[in-house]
Amino acid sequence: MSKPLVSIVMGSKSDYDTMKAACDTLDKFCVGYEVMISSAHRCPESTAEHARTLEERGFKVVIAGAGMAAHLPGVLASMTTLPVIGVPLQAAALSGLDALLSIVQMPGGVPVATVAVGKAGAKNAAVLAVQMLALSDEALSQKLQSFKQEMKAEVSAANVALRENVLGNQ
Amino acid sequence: MSKPLVSIVMGSKSDYDTMKAACDTLDKFCVGYEVMISSAHRCPESTAEHARTLEERGFKVVIAGAGMAAHLPGVLASMTTLPVIGVPLQAAALSGLDALLSIVQMPGGVPVATVAVGKAGAKNAAVLAVQMLALSDEALSQKLQSFKQEMKAEVSAANVALRENVLGNQ
Amino acid sequence: MSKPLVSIVMGSKSDYDTMKAACDTLDKFCVGYEVMISSAHRCPESTAEHARTLEERGFKVVIAGAGMAAHLPGVLASMTTLPVIGVPLQAAALSGLDALLSIVQMPGGVPVATVAVGKAGAKNAAVLAVQMLALSDEALSQKLQSFKQEMKAEVSAANVALRENVLGNQ
Amino acid sequence: MSKPLVSIVMGSKSDYDTMKAACDTLDKFCVGYEVMISSAHRCPESTAEHARTLEERGFKVVIAGAGMAAHLPGVLASMTTLPVIGVPLQAAALSGLDALLSIVQMPGGVPVATVAVGKAGAKNAAVLAVQMLALSDEALSQKLQSFKQEMKAEVSAANVALRENVLGNQ
Amino acid sequence: MSKPLVSIVMGSKSDYDTMKAACDTLDKFCVGYEVMISSAHRCPESTAEHARTLEERGFKVVIAGAGMAAHLPGVLASMTTLPVIGVPLQAAALSGLDALLSIVQMPGGVPVATVAVGKAGAKNAAVLAVQMLALSDEALSQKLQSFKQEMKAEVSAANVALRENVLGNQ
Amino acid sequence: MSKPLVSIVMGSKSDYDTMKAACDTLDKFCVGYEVMISSAHRCPESTAEHARTLEERGFKVVIAGAGMAAHLPGVLASMTTLPVIGVPLQAAALSGLDALLSIVQMPGGVPVATVAVGKAGAKNAAVLAVQMLALSDEALSQKLQSFKQEMKAEVSAANVALRENVLGNQ
Amino acid sequence: MSKPLVSIVMGSKSDYDTMKAACDTLDKFCVGYEVMISSAHRCPESTAEHARTLEERGFKVVIAGAGMAAHLPGVLASMTTLPVIGVPLQAAALSGLDALLSIVQMPGGVPVATVAVGKAGAKNAAVLAVQMLALSDEALSQKLQSFKQEMKAEVSAANVALRENVLGNQ
Amino acid sequence: MSKPLVSIVMGSKSDYDTMKAACDTLDKFCVGYEVMISSAHRCPESTAEHARTLEERGFKVVIAGAGMAAHLPGVLASMTTLPVIGVPLQAAALSGLDALLSIVQMPGGVPVATVAVGKAGAKNAAVLAVQMLALSDEALSQKLQSFKQEMKAEVSAANVALRENVLGNQ
Repeated sequence: MSKPLVSIVMGSKSDYDTMKAACDTLDKFCVGYEVMISSAHRCPESTAEHARTLEERGFKVVIAGAGMAAHLPGVLASMTTLPVIGVPLQAAALSGLDALLSIVQMPGGVPVATVAVGKAGAKNAAVLAVQMLALSDEALSQKLQSFKQEMKAEVSAANVALRENVLGNQ
Repeated sequence: MSKPLVSIVMGSKSDYDTMKAACDTLDKFCVGYEVMISSAHRCPESTAEHARTLEERGFKVVIAGAGMAAHLPGVLASMTTLPVIGVPLQAAALSGLDALLSIVQMPGGVPVATVAVGKAGAKNAAVLAVQMLALSDEALSQKLQSFKQEMKAEVSAANVALRENVLGNQ
Repeated sequence: MSKPLVSIVMGSKSDYDTMKAACDTLDKFCVGYEVMISSAHRCPESTAEHARTLEERGFKVVIAGAGMAAHLPGVLASMTTLPVIGVPLQAAALSGLDALLSIVQMPGGVPVATVAVGKAGAKNAAVLAVQMLALSDEALSQKLQSFKQEMKAEVSAANVALRENVLGNQ
Repeated sequence: MSKPLVSIVMGSKSDYDTMKAACDTLDKFCVGYEVMISSAHRCPESTAEHARTLEERGFKVVIAGAGMAAHLPGVLASMTTLPVIGVPLQAAALSGLDALLSIVQMPGGVPVATVAVGKAGAKNAAVLAVQMLALSDEALSQKLQSFKQEMKAEVSAANVALRENVLGNQ
Repeated sequence: MSKPLVSIVMGSKSDYDTMKAACDTLDKFCVGYEVMISSAHRCPESTAEHARTLEERGFKVVIAGAGMAAHLPGVLASMTTLPVIGVPLQAAALSGLDALLSIVQMPGGVPVATVAVGKAGAKNAAVLAVQMLALSDEALSQKLQSFKQEMKAEVSAANVALRENVLGNQ
Repeated sequence: MSKPLVSIVMGSKSDYDTMKAACDTLDKFCVGYEVMISSAHRCPESTAEHARTLEERGFKVVIAGAGMAAHLPGVLASMTTLPVIGVPLQAAALSGLDALLSIVQMPGGVPVATVAVGKAGAKNAAVLAVQMLALSDEALSQKLQSFKQEMKAEVSAANVALRENVLGNQ
Repeated sequence: MSKPLVSIVMGSKSDYDTMKAACDTLDKFCVGYEVMISSAHRCPESTAEHARTLEERGFKVVIAGAGMAAHLPGVLASMTTLPVIGVPLQAAALSGLDALLSIVQMPGGVPVATVAVGKAGAKNAAVLAVQMLALSDEALSQKLQSFKQEMKAEVSAANVALRENVLGNQ
Repeated sequence: MSKPLVSIVMGSKSDYDTMKAACDTLDKFCVGYEVMISSAHRCPESTAEHARTLEERGFKVVIAGAGMAAHLPGVLASMTTLPVIGVPLQAAALSGLDALLSIVQMPGGVPVATVAVGKAGAKNAAVLAVQMLALSDEALSQKLQSFKQEMKAEVSAANVALRENVLGNQ
């Protein structure tokens, strides 16, 4: 595994079930990453310390997943000029709408690149991070092209399977 | 005006139009306060500095107003053990629902005492702050009793005026 | 257990599953409390009686949990000048949004300090009550400092566990 | 005007602009009513007094209009067995959804008959009150029949006007 | 059982699980009722026929439960001057918000008395119907008074049980 | 103008401001139509009469616009087997979400083809009606092709204008 | 089975569980169809190819089901002048509201005929497709009349069963 | 102005009022860009052509703003491996929630980096684009540091002005 370029941060241990999709996707692209738990609300100092040393430790992109009043992505974005990708996580009440609005509605000057609620979002956070890194990494750019081709092949295979299935039932 | 006990913080200059209702209400109770602009996202260091010195500077309660992905109240609450009251402000889109959910849905361990969206909320933040201070200030507690009586008198007067008005139209 | 200072009121027996988190948290801080069921809609007289005698019975803070058209916190707040903390509970339909709006959107003059929907909110109601009491109780203020430290330690431990877990899987 | 049978209560003076539609509609049916301002939150005692004496003062139906965390209809319903009709009013933020949910989502045993947000709701509250009274008043029942006929005639006239208008433009 | 005075209509067989709460509550008050399935969308003619003969068949109040784009209560209300009570039912998606808005937001002139989503609403529809009938039935009015007393006794008993339970755990 | 094939129905006179976009679009395609006001709630009999005679009067498609608890499209769909297109209109409160859900969430068996809230929806209702008619009208199908080309040309022209404008400002 | 006239497209294999209701309904009407998986986002080229050849392959109507940011129906509609029916599917978070708004809120000029979220919507998409085809197919029009009669018979039978059931329980 | 690296695309001419904030922000950072109108729904072919030639024309990042069923960002993302930033725009109804959900809820594999609704979002889209470009451009990275410092200075100045203003009013 190459030198970690993506820092994946989440608010609590239970978020890993969802955020694992980001790790798996980065693994697929052979992009190194670190994973850590850090809470904007429960340990603001270490979150700040983490944010402020990201660049000197060689990270390029941050992925932050959080639920409820999900401040973690925004707090990290306030303390680094690296791009921060936010993944809204679904907690018990309110269907994840709380986390989505808490992450996406950032004020002018401090963006968080927000993706979908839950696992699809966690996967996409990783793809987006790879897209950013690929801007200056031709090999990675090629892998993204292949990834797009694979998705097409998967849809094509699913299509064939469905048609056989439906035909078989007739 | 007595020594400032309440720190009123807001995310931007334009928030003062709404947050002034908190100032006016504290004035009415003769409770001292400071007003400041501090942005969790645009100046996190001075926000943190502000939060960490609240107690030593003699403040007892914090009122924080913010719109959109309103992190200010939660960020302050993460850095002080003083009670923090959050006022959701209404920005252009989404009717203030974004600010409300970003403030009220705090994770376990780090509460923000949330009040209504907009001016009614700003006024109530001040009343709530006075209620907290009155727990150890008998004179203030008396003023709250009087305040409740005044509200009753106001409703009573409005009622008389309405009935005359309606009667006059018949 | 010390003299009860916090009155925890809920609308029905089934609410205790969620509101227990408030009791457990007050236990942790050794803050005395009473627990009662009282319904703003089904027994308004005893709710009013309860609200009006809170101060003479020595209570300092009220925590009220309710679901659906959750009027209990607001009704108590209309009859006492003690601070009232409202916990929105999630009922079958509408994801708790009904309870949240019914509690937080109080009109000017009668605040309810609203916290998150469900268990996180119940826990935070207790922490917020302790923060209010700590304004005039130095020992409690120290406990809050320790509580914040414990949360940091927990996040730190969770972080170590996650990293070992992830490393172990590679 | 006959003896007042409907008590129209609203939370504040500014609500009269909307609630006037209820008065006008009762006028049309020659059903007597009283109008008053009473706030569940700012003057709970007089609201309770009002609710408890409704029957002995000869009222049959209650119409209550309120905005934000609109508790007034529910509080009245908790203290009388007369039918209570609730009109959600639209305040600055949240489009009246807060008032709607605060009124309609009453717990089992204490209903509030909820109508639409705003003026259409205020008018319909009056029609609904008339429908209730007409259950034991044949003359009123006849008037409701005529009212339905009038609405049909109005639609018919509007239809003619529209067709002429469209034809005229062609 | 007395002569049926309340007509309970629902859109499909599966709605009976929820609407049974209305039947049970009317049983408790010994108020006669009929139950029927009629769909505003799938059998508009028989729904219209049903609505237009309600009065001559001696009914006084209509309770209509429906989910999704819940038109049944409004369609009945358009064809009778009897009061119609609407119960929003929760279907698979959208948490019952679709049914609530489809029922409560009736245009001026044709009210539907809307109650809470689901079982609490079905129960309350029956209580509301009883309240309407009690306007001209003193015995029923007495039963409503007793019903209110019973609710108080139930809350009181639940309160005692909770306190013993909590005390037992300490 | 050719024989009317599309029946455009709306709930009230004020809806014409929005629904005019449907008329204008049908004019553009030289497809004949009638316009009428008919209210599912205020004149159910003439609405039913209208629905039941649509086919014999030679209509092929229905466009129905309504606001609030918008039952008109669904009521028409319950009484004809012609395709019914529903246009949700925005009334004072709730941003048109009430009308949208009341129209789109039809139960299985009785579809309403729902389009966007407001003017864009009214225009699209007409285009959709033309698409349906074009299934058996080759000339109309050609016009739809031209319509698509025109839209492309408009975007292209807007693009040129924007670029000149931006360039001019630099 | 006759020549396929309806093209049913869905975004992923898992959507077939819901979309099968469209197939079953078309089977009932003996209307031929094809089923395929095509993703607007993962295989835009083959989706475009599919859309552009629909007419020459003899299709008359398109049914497209998709969840989340459901672009598939709109993308197909942008590339064909055949009528496109969109079925919003419910994914993990946000109750299907995301798919509904992504499908129904199409801009002026490019309509998608949107039906209800989930299975009821899938069934109704098929009925709507049949209604469109029946505009130029008298036999199909007759089947729609029979289908409406069957629905009435089903409601009638359900009504009888319910009444027996309720009577049996008394 | 340097060679254009950012392609700013919007769905219609009227979107430029909002999207201009992105242009202004890129101007501030001296990052070259092109501006164009292209509609995913009205000119899908030129949109596809645009998307597929982005890389060969030297672009690095795409910013796409759209309202209603906002498919433009997702459609572009389906056809390029460059990072696509989506700006939800607020149209007449539904407060921009439709555009937000249509953009952010992309399925796994095809991310769109979503920012806030409206002008704040348009500005942040530009800042996010600069952050991505700065990953391989040290000078740009320095400018981002300065930009963060400027924001701090602005808050600081606003704070001084507010305090003087408040002091002046006392």
